[in-house]
Amino acid sequence: MEITKPTLVVDLKIAEQNIKRMAEKFTQKGIQFRPHFKTHQSHFIGELYRKFGITKCTVSSVGMASYFAKNEWTDITIAFPANLLEIKEMNALAEQIQLQILVDSLEKVKILSEGISPKISLFIEIDTGYFRSGILWEELTQIEEVIRAIEAVPQFAFVGFLSHTGNTYSQPKVEDVLSLFDTSRRKMLDLKHYFIRDYQNLILSLGDTPAASLAIEFDGVDEMRPGNFVFYDVMQYLLGACKVENIAVAVYCPVVAKYPKRNQIVIYGGGVHLSKEKLKWKGKDIFGLVSIPDEQGFGRLISGAYVESLSQEHGLINMPSTEIDQINLGDLLAIYPIHSCMTVDLNIEMLSLDGSVISKYRTY
Amino acid sequence: MEITKPTLVVDLKIAEQNIKRMAEKFTQKGIQFRPHFKTHQSHFIGELYRKFGITKCTVSSVGMASYFAKNEWTDITIAFPANLLEIKEMNALAEQIQLQILVDSLEKVKILSEGISPKISLFIEIDTGYFRSGILWEELTQIEEVIRAIEAVPQFAFVGFLSHTGNTYSQPKVEDVLSLFDTSRRKMLDLKHYFIRDYQNLILSLGDTPAASLAIEFDGVDEMRPGNFVFYDVMQYLLGACKVENIAVAVYCPVVAKYPKRNQIVIYGGGVHLSKEKLKWKGKDIFGLVSIPDEQGFGRLISGAYVESLSQEHGLINMPSTEIDQINLGDLLAIYPIHSCMTVDLNIEMLSLDGSVISKYRTY
Repeated sequence: MEITKPTLVVDLKIAEQNIKRMAEKFTQKGIQFRPHFKTHQSHFIGELYRKFGITKCTVSSVGMASYFAKNEWTDITIAFPANLLEIKEMNALAEQIQLQILVDSLEKVKILSEGISPKISLFIEIDTGYFRSGILWEELTQIEEVIRAIEAVPQFAFVGFLSHTGNTYSQPKVEDVLSLFDTSRRKMLDLKHYFIRDYQNLILSLGDTPAASLAIEFDGVDEMRPGNFVFYDVMQYLLGACKVENIAVAVYCPVVAKYPKRNQIVIYGGGVHLSKEKLKWKGKDIFGLVSIPDEQGFGRLISGAYVESLSQEHGLINMPSTEIDQINLGDLLAIYPIHSCMTVDLNIEMLSLDGSVISKYRTY
Repeated sequence: MEITKPTLVVDLKIAEQNIKRMAEKFTQKGIQFRPHFKTHQSHFIGELYRKFGITKCTVSSVGMASYFAKNEWTDITIAFPANLLEIKEMNALAEQIQLQILVDSLEKVKILSEGISPKISLFIEIDTGYFRSGILWEELTQIEEVIRAIEAVPQFAFVGFLSHTGNTYSQPKVEDVLSLFDTSRRKMLDLKHYFIRDYQNLILSLGDTPAASLAIEFDGVDEMRPGNFVFYDVMQYLLGACKVENIAVAVYCPVVAKYPKRNQIVIYGGGVHLSKEKLKWKGKDIFGLVSIPDEQGFGRLISGAYVESLSQEHGLINMPSTEIDQINLGDLLAIYPIHSCMTVDLNIEMLSLDGSVISKYRTY
């Protein structure tokens, strides 16, 4: 594998282990596993899921749903507030596949009912306290109005309640993730109990990677939709949701300058390759962790080394003085991304460790 | 122009005015203007520069240099530490065009001299205090050694000293930008004075958008390489380097949810469309400013509205209560990006206001 410029590399063996672990966890619990494919956006990675019996997926846009529908995924949830400007595309999709979309207002149900003709399933998106999108879990009257509006439309089927507890990502500790997920799950469960008598088939769909990785108690949850876990990243590692050896993607970057006096190395690899996503680590902003790749894979993490700033194409690495001598101009370093969803999206191509190109949605 | 999902729109009239203003400024001062094309990465935008007599450009990667070389740009500087893994590509380019590359160590000059055969020009990159890449301006002995090493290689020509005062971007006020640029310019000028007797043709190449926009005094500077000014952005606007009406790019994003009780709107438009670049504004992190586009262009900025957070595809807008009623589901909002270089890079296509597709490097 000859790499000459910043290149996203996937360790498929690790990705497959991550999928296996998560698929087995939810199968054992009798919970439907509908993984989010926005992290990899790749038909090829999608195939790895089929090995474990997964046939349903989640995506974050109509375009991504169309890409996976073309690749024989026949049951897809677009876990994003339905975009009224893409009704034509949603109609085309709903003609072909079992499609679930999200609503959270009467107004949206009304406009969709006028534009969508094929059979389509609707989740009501519930906000359990993340305050991004969805109806607040406690607004029972509003929720009931929306259910009734959905049920009144012949081509619409009400599926249940869907929530994304995205605030687990910013929790400082494992116990905070668990406690937050549990609170959200209980709020959703109350909702289920309240409505189940009238809508006996309603399901609860939850799913964020930190909780899916760490939680044990999923009582009442019918479906989980984590996505990030397929590759994991530094954010999940530092949060405790994975080990460093579970991280399945890294950006290989050439070393283009060395400044031993200030313990810094410049790589060809900037915000356009890694994304400007950062997090606090030991009081500092970091944009990635660093390892030296070898024949087998990403290699060992260099203790104490981190990406301290990113320009468009430059990455500035802080490298401990004990390590800097072994790094030469023209070497490749593997940078573990802070947030793999963002990094993978940026890179038009991915390579596997054996150098094969893995195609993605945006190149499709 | 029918837009149904997040779309990068360019106001070509504004971009052309930005180019005209900057070209005239440097022409009047007798300074060579070699604009950085990493901001737009588009042959089509490159053509706008030719109207004002510009025939030389700057890029940030070998790939981008090849793209512009194919589009008849015959004099290109790659303003990035030369990447030893792309010597083959640099050779191919140097066979075709007048190519300038950057070095900042004896080691790099040595390795390049063994691999590069066509005539090529080398700048020594100087660090005047940004501490990213380059030899520190005060390291006269080291600089002289590198010049001698370059001069000893028959196919190499030493052009002069190049610096990027990237720390102007993070200055709080116009006077800080001016003072920082002036300090850097004087350091470079000292270097020029020191070496000019032995190397009479050496030039000084500087250029960052804040200083290029705001400074008046360029004594001793032979070449300027700003890039961002072609589109500008919220960062430059808040820094005082441009007016809001000089911003030439915005991402048009559909409104997908409204939460009037908490003065928030959700748009389809996230980190993958805008980039996670943020800045502090009135004590808050912001990821973009917001306007309502009309037939003529991006329209008026909504006072007090800003993008307060971004997920992969969601943007959460804080919208003053006095403004939220006029915004409906399915409307398009124009989001002015924090840093146009990053946002433009993310978007595979750009549209002009009349709906024509403007092709870019990554789609080439």
